[in-house]
Amino acid sequence: MQDELLLMMPGPVPMPQRVRMAMTKQAINHRGPLFGEIYEDCVRMLKPMFGTENDIYVLSGSGTAAMEAAVGNFCVGKKIVSLVNGKFGDRLCKLSGHYGDATGIESEWGTPLDLTRLEAALEDGAEVVTLVHNETSVAIKNPAEAVGKLARKYDALFVMDCITSVAGDVVEADKWGADIALVGSQKCLAAPAGLSAISVSDRAWDQIAEKRPFYLDMEAYRKSGSKSPMQTPYTPAVPLFLALREACLIVEEEGLLNRIQRHRTMASAVRAAAAAWGIELFPVLNDMHEYSNTVTAMTMPEGITDSDFRGMVKKTGIEFSGGQDHLKGKIFRIGTMGATSAPEVLAVLAAAQHALTSLGFEVADDGVQAAAEVL
Amino acid sequence: MQDELLLMMPGPVPMPQRVRMAMTKQAINHRGPLFGEIYEDCVRMLKPMFGTENDIYVLSGSGTAAMEAAVGNFCVGKKIVSLVNGKFGDRLCKLSGHYGDATGIESEWGTPLDLTRLEAALEDGAEVVTLVHNETSVAIKNPAEAVGKLARKYDALFVMDCITSVAGDVVEADKWGADIALVGSQKCLAAPAGLSAISVSDRAWDQIAEKRPFYLDMEAYRKSGSKSPMQTPYTPAVPLFLALREACLIVEEEGLLNRIQRHRTMASAVRAAAAAWGIELFPVLNDMHEYSNTVTAMTMPEGITDSDFRGMVKKTGIEFSGGQDHLKGKIFRIGTMGATSAPEVLAVLAAAQHALTSLGFEVADDGVQAAAEVL
Repeated sequence: MQDELLLMMPGPVPMPQRVRMAMTKQAINHRGPLFGEIYEDCVRMLKPMFGTENDIYVLSGSGTAAMEAAVGNFCVGKKIVSLVNGKFGDRLCKLSGHYGDATGIESEWGTPLDLTRLEAALEDGAEVVTLVHNETSVAIKNPAEAVGKLARKYDALFVMDCITSVAGDVVEADKWGADIALVGSQKCLAAPAGLSAISVSDRAWDQIAEKRPFYLDMEAYRKSGSKSPMQTPYTPAVPLFLALREACLIVEEEGLLNRIQRHRTMASAVRAAAAAWGIELFPVLNDMHEYSNTVTAMTMPEGITDSDFRGMVKKTGIEFSGGQDHLKGKIFRIGTMGATSAPEVLAVLAAAQHALTSLGFEVADDGVQAAAEVL
Repeated sequence: MQDELLLMMPGPVPMPQRVRMAMTKQAINHRGPLFGEIYEDCVRMLKPMFGTENDIYVLSGSGTAAMEAAVGNFCVGKKIVSLVNGKFGDRLCKLSGHYGDATGIESEWGTPLDLTRLEAALEDGAEVVTLVHNETSVAIKNPAEAVGKLARKYDALFVMDCITSVAGDVVEADKWGADIALVGSQKCLAAPAGLSAISVSDRAWDQIAEKRPFYLDMEAYRKSGSKSPMQTPYTPAVPLFLALREACLIVEEEGLLNRIQRHRTMASAVRAAAAAWGIELFPVLNDMHEYSNTVTAMTMPEGITDSDFRGMVKKTGIEFSGGQDHLKGKIFRIGTMGATSAPEVLAVLAAAQHALTSLGFEVADDGVQAAAEVL
């Protein structure tokens, strides 16, 4: 029996063997030159993936830690406007309310953001805009470039959560005017869970708060990061840094653009399967460019329960995701992120198709073959 | 050439092969039963090491994250008295000032704490006492039991940082009245850096703050921890949990008391070497029980520089620590923590003795043989 399920979720994702083996290195002194080199390598390789020349720091904490580092250091006491059309937008909005005066511009989950309301809020004096670029809870990509343009027009800070798009889709933090950008390790980078990274513009540094979180104090990160060898202010999760470096090396070897193209192809293949099956994508969008490049959601067919469907696929050794919060049971989500490629995509679609038909759903056409055609 | 230095520092420490290999497991869904089991195993095995029946939560962050979780959740706005006689006591005092109204009762680094002043502060209405049990910066053990007794007498919360004593020395959180106790993964547990754990008493839960940190929100940890399967509120550093479980299993197999005795013997051996060499321990204490069980500090002999001394030992493939902050260059510290045992202790002492004599210090007697006698 298979000990390990093949994860086809929007993170965590399967890790290449090289990444896993990198963690077996014996303990090192994290104040020494070897750790400094590992940290510098990560930063250097992450910059093109973020599309930034800004400072990048790697935090020993998940994407949520990076979100808090962003808001808790650079947005304290400010008038924040948070764009929300999914679970992670909502989390960033809650966090913003924790540290500043936050207003959510909420659209129904999975529907486009209201940029007219955003502009009105900016006219009204909003000082920060937060956005989730790739909203995995509803499998859509939000218009980061347009949001960044508006933020710049009104001289507001732009906090961009690209936790699930960096290394899987085009991210151009500098070009789009993102002052802060975030990534999580266990998403498109295909590294283990537990690290995140944050880029910070000079404009954001100029606005750092007097009173900051302690463990996530970005001023402390900056100070330690400028030491030679480069350091972290507190003990870093060394094995995860080793794994992250290996994962970044793999991205370099594949080539960032190739990797993004591979992600695009995989997502197209899953959408082709949906079309063949006659299952609606969730959400229904006219512009295909608004769909996420790294996860695809579909509406759960009438009469099929989430637990039956995903339970049956799990028996084949594959796990994908259901809906979150009020979308639980209503949609399912197939992640195609990181190191996974055509064979895994075909496998999850074959298992899903088999489960769908076994549970009484009549597929219009063969989705696996439709996907194979794309791949 | 040896790729990896033998670390004889007060953390991080070398990890057993089993612990390192545990991290190579393929990614798993951290909301599933397998992760729940790993987390529960860690908690179950940590409880006797803490000497507590209280809830324990494992945080994906270093010991400093656990310190902030303690103070930022349970001491907010309170009158805090922080006992300081070393670097980590000082850090806990600073953190306390970040969240509450903190007063440090400072003794010179390495000298005994002033419990008379502590009692006066408690009489004066202090609501929280913070203490570092094993202060590695000056290689001493602080009187946690006596401090806990005073805290209880005045009904104050007792926050005990036992980051470097759990699994290497006797820790009796419940018996000593510690409401909060903390451990770091890369110390006596000999797991990789990047995790910490915190135990919380009912008395502390009753006083949790309304406004808490976000990533380190203990109420969120409690809520997720009570789910079945047990979960963390945000993405955990899964490979580190796997390693921590393996490290805890090793503690169980060795037997906690055996492990503590081994630590005691190793520290005695290092002190015996110092006596043989004719080098003063730092600090000079009358009561041997006040020395740390997991790290030993000595005064740097006249005319020998820290960089020459530790540099020469490093060439042998072994790294130990110098002094921190104002003790830099004045002392050196040999950690004997975790999985290290007699061979490593003999090796570091032999290398140190060779460096001492090479640098012109005339040792009174053979410290390596004196240590071997103890081991």
